[in-house]
Amino acid sequence: MPAKDDTKKRFWSYEQVHDAIRHGVCDKRMFDDFVPTLLLAIGGGGYIPARIARTYLQHAYKTKVTMQAVGLQLYDSEMDGCDVSSSTVRVTQWLSYGEGAGHVTLSGQRILIVDEVDDSRKTLAACVATLQADIDAQRALARAAGAAWEEPDVGIMVLAYKERPKLAELPAKIMKDRYWSCIDMDDCWCVFPWDAFDIYDHTRLAEGANPDQLPATAAERAAQSKPIMVTA
Amino acid sequence: MPAKDDTKKRFWSYEQVHDAIRHGVCDKRMFDDFVPTLLLAIGGGGYIPARIARTYLQHAYKTKVTMQAVGLQLYDSEMDGCDVSSSTVRVTQWLSYGEGAGHVTLSGQRILIVDEVDDSRKTLAACVATLQADIDAQRALARAAGAAWEEPDVGIMVLAYKERPKLAELPAKIMKDRYWSCIDMDDCWCVFPWDAFDIYDHTRLAEGANPDQLPATAAERAAQSKPIMVTA
Repeated sequence: MPAKDDTKKRFWSYEQVHDAIRHGVCDKRMFDDFVPTLLLAIGGGGYIPARIARTYLQHAYKTKVTMQAVGLQLYDSEMDGCDVSSSTVRVTQWLSYGEGAGHVTLSGQRILIVDEVDDSRKTLAACVATLQADIDAQRALARAAGAAWEEPDVGIMVLAYKERPKLAELPAKIMKDRYWSCIDMDDCWCVFPWDAFDIYDHTRLAEGANPDQLPATAAERAAQSKPIMVTA
Repeated sequence: MPAKDDTKKRFWSYEQVHDAIRHGVCDKRMFDDFVPTLLLAIGGGGYIPARIARTYLQHAYKTKVTMQAVGLQLYDSEMDGCDVSSSTVRVTQWLSYGEGAGHVTLSGQRILIVDEVDDSRKTLAACVATLQADIDAQRALARAAGAAWEEPDVGIMVLAYKERPKLAELPAKIMKDRYWSCIDMDDCWCVFPWDAFDIYDHTRLAEGANPDQLPATAAERAAQSKPIMVTA
């Protein structure tokens, strides 16, 4: 890994994130063959892309898809200096299936896992494996009970596919035609707006400003954004 | 309820959402007396404010707080024309507590529930009540086992408090000093950026553009945003 100062950074504005997802879902029509019934947002990075994807799925496919969040953290014995290559993935939150009349079955679902970046691929692979274990368990239960079972379909959408060596593999059937990235990019450091301290400076960087020429004062920055009321 | 065309709208840009949370957490130091240990994002509207709040909690209090999502939906027998006053709240996802060594206890936690708007208050009240039932159950288990128990503290942060009749009540101890809104506003219709189809037009409206003078073409709009690479 290069020293952090040598890593290329790509700053993303919120508008760039939002519009990349619009482009994927509405212009490229990525999901014509797989209209999701359930979105799985991988937290925390996938929360925002998943929420935006839900908006565009509704636009493009007239479907209000259910969304749940899951938590998966890369960790090793030294969290602060987490070495991705040796780390494992811990599940901190998982799908709620409910009980009784409110029970959510995986049977027949088209489940779209959403994350912001396909980086080392370890989180995505762990998410798929955890989901597959639940699918296997629900299938076995359904068969034992003589109940109907339709094999669910699992796909992945990432805001950005990053070209770099992957440290985990995804199932071949997903890579074949159930994997979508809104943008493909070289291996560089993504700086997302939700991590920004000063969002106005951040947006300017994303839009190509010279870092030396950002507004000097907070008042200047705040003046860029004026909430208003309009009557519909 | 006024006809939709008569309802005032407030368009929010992503930057306005982000900066309102910065203002609350970092300028107003809302959480000096309650540094959260667990964020509960109410889906789908709370996902984005919660993710941003996590960033600023880390800035202001040097704490990397755990985040989980919960799903709560207002619904009644006719979902499409959902009447909030008669509707009930359905829990579609809830906290994962894990098991064994990975078990998350509520004992001693400072739990911050995050949503985008305090509107009818029904969702927030249902979330607090559901959480309180879990607290009561965990307390009873701990006492039965003779285990230590520290009463958790529960707070609420909303991006916007909306001045309108509330259809549900929150516990007095929360309203006293565990309730924070980044912005207080009149009763109007919030149009959030994550629901926008054209994010560039949406942002211009949020920043005060005359709706009749938005860019005419998609090319003009796309030209406003140019992803770039910069070297750190």
